[in-house]
Amino acid sequence: MAKFMDVHRGMTGITEEQLREAHAADLAIQDEEQVSFEHAWADPEAGLVYCLSEAPGADAVQRVHERAGHPADEIHPVPLTV
Amino acid sequence: MAKFMDVHRGMTGITEEQLREAHAADLAIQDEEQVSFEHAWADPEAGLVYCLSEAPGADAVQRVHERAGHPADEIHPVPLTV
Repeated sequence: MAKFMDVHRGMTGITEEQLREAHAADLAIQDEEQVSFEHAWADPEAGLVYCLSEAPGADAVQRVHERAGHPADEIHPVPLTV
Repeated sequence: MAKFMDVHRGMTGITEEQLREAHAADLAIQDEEQVSFEHAWADPEAGLVYCLSEAPGADAVQRVHERAGHPADEIHPVPLTV
């Protein structure tokens, strides 16, 4: 398992409720891909959402996000953490 | 106080030790700007570092990063968190 930071663009105006619903949609199916979404942070003005997860691979992260209806624009392995 | 996610580019090949040293340099002076750096995540292959902080403003985050020798390329307020 490894850590990943993914980025969603074009989310301008996202609300707290929409972020919570999107995260809940990921959590509902993440076990099927052995993914664990830990946190998400949104900048509604720039339309950016960052998600931190633990997963077997970037493709597993993307499969969950795609099935939940919000594919990521970038997925980065982040092996280094402080 | 608010939460911020900042992004550093061009950090290709960054090592665990370099990330730890850079973070320590921020921590050493962050109190002077009322900034609290909570985490940093690095993708050495893409050369990306993401830092999560709590601060009075993006300018305070940047002042700490600049004085520590590694100005951020982007600093985003992230008022929404899950």
